[in-house]
Amino acid sequence: MREPVLLVLDADPSPRLGRLAGRVLVRHVDRAGLAAQLPRADVLLVWDLASDAVREAWPGDGPRPAWVHTASVGVDRLLCPELVGCDTVVTNARGVFEQPIAEYVAGLVLAFAKDLPGTLELQQRRRWRHRESVPVAGSRAVVVGAGPVGRAITRLLMGLGVEVALVGRTARRTIRGAGDLDRLAARADWVICAAPLTPRTHGMFDTRFFGLMQPSARFINVGRGPMVVEGDLVDALRKRWIAGAALDAFEREPLGPQSPLWDVPGLIVSPHMSGDAVGWRDRLGEQFVAMYELWLTGRPLPNVVDKRLGYIPGTDLDE
Amino acid sequence: MREPVLLVLDADPSPRLGRLAGRVLVRHVDRAGLAAQLPRADVLLVWDLASDAVREAWPGDGPRPAWVHTASVGVDRLLCPELVGCDTVVTNARGVFEQPIAEYVAGLVLAFAKDLPGTLELQQRRRWRHRESVPVAGSRAVVVGAGPVGRAITRLLMGLGVEVALVGRTARRTIRGAGDLDRLAARADWVICAAPLTPRTHGMFDTRFFGLMQPSARFINVGRGPMVVEGDLVDALRKRWIAGAALDAFEREPLGPQSPLWDVPGLIVSPHMSGDAVGWRDRLGEQFVAMYELWLTGRPLPNVVDKRLGYIPGTDLDE
Repeated sequence: MREPVLLVLDADPSPRLGRLAGRVLVRHVDRAGLAAQLPRADVLLVWDLASDAVREAWPGDGPRPAWVHTASVGVDRLLCPELVGCDTVVTNARGVFEQPIAEYVAGLVLAFAKDLPGTLELQQRRRWRHRESVPVAGSRAVVVGAGPVGRAITRLLMGLGVEVALVGRTARRTIRGAGDLDRLAARADWVICAAPLTPRTHGMFDTRFFGLMQPSARFINVGRGPMVVEGDLVDALRKRWIAGAALDAFEREPLGPQSPLWDVPGLIVSPHMSGDAVGWRDRLGEQFVAMYELWLTGRPLPNVVDKRLGYIPGTDLDE
Repeated sequence: MREPVLLVLDADPSPRLGRLAGRVLVRHVDRAGLAAQLPRADVLLVWDLASDAVREAWPGDGPRPAWVHTASVGVDRLLCPELVGCDTVVTNARGVFEQPIAEYVAGLVLAFAKDLPGTLELQQRRRWRHRESVPVAGSRAVVVGAGPVGRAITRLLMGLGVEVALVGRTARRTIRGAGDLDRLAARADWVICAAPLTPRTHGMFDTRFFGLMQPSARFINVGRGPMVVEGDLVDALRKRWIAGAALDAFEREPLGPQSPLWDVPGLIVSPHMSGDAVGWRDRLGEQFVAMYELWLTGRPLPNVVDKRLGYIPGTDLDE
């Protein structure tokens, strides 16, 4: 039997696949070479996440990989109607980013509550100005997105004593349905977006939504950028409809130096780093290697994405 | 029976004592008037914490208050040999500050791990620079001081998955003794000071101690300033013996604009605010009123300080 062909849509540094030596033919490819190589590959590893290359290069009815794995949680950049409609299996990197993202969100919540940005600014000006902080225990959060990331955030915030409502598309045992979101957001201190980017969630955080929130509340996005209408968020902050926000993802990345987002009062801008704890690339590589070994021996793959939904549907908080 | 005389060493705003109307004669006093009034008071409420006034004004063998309550956790500013040696009961404000301080420390730990100060600095410079963060879960902390504050910090950090060693003066069931501190500090990612200021702890964080710590570790002080030899900490940071530090208390407060501490690389300076969550003054007043009602009817007071130790001795983490 010939060795399977693994196509790696690459980025720097490349994944470490040494453990697969002799059991795979690895072909590294860049965006430009993708369309030509896809029909001859058995497996596609999407290591470079910064582009829509797969969507653009995916073959129509012709030969194609049996399995596509993406080294990310979100699959929005991959899915095109042809990929959704065919029998190719799509898997994601569930398990690598959840805990770091949850810690990042908890850090932002505590930083806002304790006004750490204000402390750092006063320190630069060499000014001693005592302020009162806000208790986090007993505050209320809404986490939008009931996937593994949203669930990890929920668990960590609950450990800090926050009352958390976890909102998914449809209501389940410990998860509230999307129909409850407006009412929950209107009484929340923290609204945290950890949802997948889908046609339903695209642009959902807009002027209407920010208008529902309390003036003392903060908005945090660790999902995809296009879920937030950035101009609407800037307006809401400038008009003090909400007290603050933190964005770790943007409509277009990286943000250029000319972006108006850098100096909006009350807005913390970070470079899409919430999930990237030291060693994340190694963990992504190890995860793929383990999955490839399952695939090679015909065993079922974990982390299979529901391509029509655009994510891995969960069933409950404790899962 | 005459109404008891309650002397309030005051600060602005004064405590709300309205509920005690008719059951107490309240006399507000400032530092200058304290010595003259102390012999005629039954109870002293130390509301102004910013001075050593009580220590200086405390009467020798003469008439004196039967009970001194301080609206703080630390009692170091009160205790003089005459007060320690007499039968006057000293109580503190245990229960008001613990949770806010624990949240503050958790916020600092997460901010360091996620490099939030770096993110805010890069944002000011409009620069997108991706960095890797450090996982908090699985990191190691040493909390120095096994009183209510240290225990609250320990519980909250454990909820974030941190491995915490809680160090008190003597070893107890879940508490390590001071003799273990050096060895624990040498392998810790976080050393957090929440100890009372006593002759044993004065200046304990010095060149010798910082030299034990790992170059990647951070030091956080939410106890009293004089436990840290500030010049030694500055040296340790400049020489990169440790990666960072946060001080919320100082040898002299407030820090003046000339202080060299404001711009030490890796040092976060905050204005003694870690325990002061919105409503803290009201809670301190309510706590004293409730304690006064117990005292008036001869019932035992909570929060009685062991004057010889200089704090309320605890026995275990879960207490």
